[in-house]
Amino acid sequence: MHKFIRIDMTTLTSTVSEVPAKYVGLGGRALTSNFVNDEVNPTCHPLGKNNKIVFAPGLLSGTAAANSGRMSVGSKSPLTGTIKESNTGGSSSQMLAKMGIKAFVIEGMPSEDKFYVIKLDMNGVTIEEAPAEIIGGCGNYDAIRILGEKYGKHVGVAIIGPAGEYRLPSANISFKDPEGNIRSAGRGGLGAVLGSKKVKAIIIDETGAGKVEIANPEAFMAANKVFSKALLDHPVSGQGLGLYGTDVLVNILNEAGGLPSYNFTSGRIDHNDNISGETMNATITERGGEGKVSHGCHKGCVIRCSQWYTDKEGKYITSGFEYETIWGLGADAGIEDLDAIAYIDRAMDDVGVDSIETAVAVATAMDGGLIPWGDGKAVLEIVKDMAKPTPLARIIAGGAGAVGSLCGLYRTPVVKNQAIPAYDPRAIKGIGLTYATTTMGADHTAGYCISGNILKVGANIDPLKKEGQIEYARAMQIGTAAIDSTGMCLFIYFGVADNPAGYQALIDMINAQYGLSLTANDVDELGKSVLKVERDFNKRAGFTNAHDRLPEFMEYEPIMPHNVVWDFTPEEIDEVMNF
Amino acid sequence: MHKFIRIDMTTLTSTVSEVPAKYVGLGGRALTSNFVNDEVNPTCHPLGKNNKIVFAPGLLSGTAAANSGRMSVGSKSPLTGTIKESNTGGSSSQMLAKMGIKAFVIEGMPSEDKFYVIKLDMNGVTIEEAPAEIIGGCGNYDAIRILGEKYGKHVGVAIIGPAGEYRLPSANISFKDPEGNIRSAGRGGLGAVLGSKKVKAIIIDETGAGKVEIANPEAFMAANKVFSKALLDHPVSGQGLGLYGTDVLVNILNEAGGLPSYNFTSGRIDHNDNISGETMNATITERGGEGKVSHGCHKGCVIRCSQWYTDKEGKYITSGFEYETIWGLGADAGIEDLDAIAYIDRAMDDVGVDSIETAVAVATAMDGGLIPWGDGKAVLEIVKDMAKPTPLARIIAGGAGAVGSLCGLYRTPVVKNQAIPAYDPRAIKGIGLTYATTTMGADHTAGYCISGNILKVGANIDPLKKEGQIEYARAMQIGTAAIDSTGMCLFIYFGVADNPAGYQALIDMINAQYGLSLTANDVDELGKSVLKVERDFNKRAGFTNAHDRLPEFMEYEPIMPHNVVWDFTPEEIDEVMNF
Repeated sequence: MHKFIRIDMTTLTSTVSEVPAKYVGLGGRALTSNFVNDEVNPTCHPLGKNNKIVFAPGLLSGTAAANSGRMSVGSKSPLTGTIKESNTGGSSSQMLAKMGIKAFVIEGMPSEDKFYVIKLDMNGVTIEEAPAEIIGGCGNYDAIRILGEKYGKHVGVAIIGPAGEYRLPSANISFKDPEGNIRSAGRGGLGAVLGSKKVKAIIIDETGAGKVEIANPEAFMAANKVFSKALLDHPVSGQGLGLYGTDVLVNILNEAGGLPSYNFTSGRIDHNDNISGETMNATITERGGEGKVSHGCHKGCVIRCSQWYTDKEGKYITSGFEYETIWGLGADAGIEDLDAIAYIDRAMDDVGVDSIETAVAVATAMDGGLIPWGDGKAVLEIVKDMAKPTPLARIIAGGAGAVGSLCGLYRTPVVKNQAIPAYDPRAIKGIGLTYATTTMGADHTAGYCISGNILKVGANIDPLKKEGQIEYARAMQIGTAAIDSTGMCLFIYFGVADNPAGYQALIDMINAQYGLSLTANDVDELGKSVLKVERDFNKRAGFTNAHDRLPEFMEYEPIMPHNVVWDFTPEEIDEVMNF
Repeated sequence: MHKFIRIDMTTLTSTVSEVPAKYVGLGGRALTSNFVNDEVNPTCHPLGKNNKIVFAPGLLSGTAAANSGRMSVGSKSPLTGTIKESNTGGSSSQMLAKMGIKAFVIEGMPSEDKFYVIKLDMNGVTIEEAPAEIIGGCGNYDAIRILGEKYGKHVGVAIIGPAGEYRLPSANISFKDPEGNIRSAGRGGLGAVLGSKKVKAIIIDETGAGKVEIANPEAFMAANKVFSKALLDHPVSGQGLGLYGTDVLVNILNEAGGLPSYNFTSGRIDHNDNISGETMNATITERGGEGKVSHGCHKGCVIRCSQWYTDKEGKYITSGFEYETIWGLGADAGIEDLDAIAYIDRAMDDVGVDSIETAVAVATAMDGGLIPWGDGKAVLEIVKDMAKPTPLARIIAGGAGAVGSLCGLYRTPVVKNQAIPAYDPRAIKGIGLTYATTTMGADHTAGYCISGNILKVGANIDPLKKEGQIEYARAMQIGTAAIDSTGMCLFIYFGVADNPAGYQALIDMINAQYGLSLTANDVDELGKSVLKVERDFNKRAGFTNAHDRLPEFMEYEPIMPHNVVWDFTPEEIDEVMNF
């Protein structure tokens, strides 16, 4: 039996039942988005008692399939007001899948002003008061350690930091990775939703769990072999990401003139060598000690784009040190020192805020005169202050939209109030269409058109031209919605986009696990259905095509070096979701 | 010739032309809303170069008609994202009308980072750099005095305070009244729009202007006599408002159990006697000196609901000391001392922020733990700090919605991000329908259903019941849109609602002035057309029926003493604007 768990924080009770018929066959984002659309009133307040939050491993999670350990978290977002699926690495997805838990839902809101820890194990659900020492300012690194001492080092942990306790709009949900470090369901403020429900942490103890049932194990293993090889054979997923992490993109985007810098007033920086993936690799290698240049965020990852970044003494500072974070602080906010950025990254993980939203908020605040340009020390203090939080820390944790509003800026890089990441839509038009039209607010992972526009994987489109972009942005969003439902890391795209055998192997694994005979067309239909469900929610929440627009300044402020503006018409943009 | 003036802040040039045919016959809100809908792209950024702001006296402004000196200011609001008409007393409306200026528009945005003063006189438009001494922290009281020294004490002044210079979302536009004190186009952050266009002040010099042309002077005077008598004969407009100001409402609303207090968690307070209109009258009377219990915000006002509130030495502190401000600080934020509230009111006028938005933001911040409940001293310092502004001052000046978001509250009393004023929708259901459905964001002046629900003027509706509310809220909004187009003060409603002769006299004045033969039906159609134009703008800006909703908490948090929730269904609410 696959289990579907509901935890009611109003009554502090839970029910474990079979998976409702309508959710059988769904996983990850397909499950969370359908659930949210079915059960959450789209006009409810995201932090009120009527919002719900649902966690679901992907269809392939918990199996031996390479890179299948992602988990989806769904809810109505306090940042965007839209439906939200935020996904993450870490250990929890695979544990839940092995425990036969298809999804768990947290709903309601306790009347007492205290925080709780929810424990899921093979006996069911336990809700107990959170240890006092992890409440009211304790960082996530310490809290995960303390919870490990109490519940065992082997357990999976999902946790909110002080930012989530204070329900700040950028608060994320952190997930323990295999080494006890931090991965995040970062975007959209879902940590604030958990905070509103007074859930400090969720412990997942897989003790006694079996293996995920596979209908046809031989076929599964054969397909996984082909699939893994496809990932390793591709220069991006098999080499570049492992060597330099996602930060490999700094030099690539800078060269392309699509690296937004100084709050989206330029597309190129001079200090790219300070913060590039090549420099990160060299620094970690040179410093030795605990540093690792390549490392996976979950068991079974063969791409291994993470790393352990170290200080001058070779001591661990942070991991999962992503391009988008380094871009935000290094280029958009002009902080020229990678160590300074690393300490801020750690502080963001520790306090529990989305590193993209926060970095863009910082850059916007610099444009608004709240923080000196490039001042890493000031930013580190502000991020740490989110644990109190001071008024300035609250403003930054409010996200780029809040900063723009409180600074009276028209140059506020958000869509649906979510910060635009790392790739300038004026110089890379495909990604602009994703930002404008995704159901999530600006989100590069919703349809990573950088691939065909810049990396030339899966397509070969001129980033400065409109030709082919609408169809590509549509296809990428559909495909991504499907991938996000499998538990697969998005980076598998590099391995399968130009490798039909690799892509077929992915489908073969699903078929082998569930005894199905899905085709590529079925996968496509799954992706479309997910997007339609999400758009239905958003429409009922009050979103229209008028919200599927980039910030107006991009239409009249050209970005260097290409001196280009955003020039898709509203009618063209609306074509993306016309399927 | 009636003049229509365009001032282009990009080129620092202006054009004076005849009124475009489509705006002939319109005034006040009818003119500003049509103009904004015609010329402003609804998806533009309110603080970007493509927004425009338009000022228009009403149809009857500048004449001898009693209470006809209101002016409408229209734009896209940075606070709500909707179309906005914010109207004000002061001297400017009558001056513009006498000068034959039907409207002036400010558009574009200068490239240089300095502020300008625009002067309108019978020779046209002059744009000059603002005196350095009034920029960067100078309060409105001083700035108006300094501008008077430069341009003459007789001129009209519209000005933004430091809050407008910083483009804070609650920034208002202040207008000099006949004594050099301050009236405000308060709601919706239009001071930030003026700030974005780098317009510090607008000087209106009527020297050389003639009289407003009246087609049939005898009929006009006769009608005005009937009209004035109707205002003076009614106990509310002829007596109550003059004696106690709008603050007369504290005891009335407290008795009705509809006085939202402690951030909308109760409908009644115990310290009502501290802050009531009766107490205000007694205090001013007792203190003597400069105090005035009754005073008009513009020449020709016969209701005279304003007052000069004084300190213990009888020295002027503030005027236009309104019920909604006193409610917000006194009941909703629990500040129990009227003097403390008066000093905050003065500070809000001086820094240039909407006193309703700010007061509700303060109360929300108290609920969020940012300010101690009832701490008037702390609030005064924060409001003064808006001239710097400090981070906390920025948060409060962001309005109630920003405060709610940055404090992670679901109990955030806003509609379309504008603060709900002074009358609880759960206990006074008619006003809730106005808050939900007006094109302006929560705004009591958009359809003052308190009249028929509580004061029993114009209708006699049980405030706790649904019966009759939908039709009443619809009629009140239509009528108000028409009144807002005449330049008439909203309070004339009390004089004409139950007095057919008084109402006919209002129409007769318009007919006598313009040589028309309008009927009551035409006035009704005017109101409907204004609302339709505004809703068209909002729809194109992305607003749907899903935004015509009160905050969700009002549906499940009952308010004392009647222990009632907001219980109109979405379908019922949507009927209000179905005409």
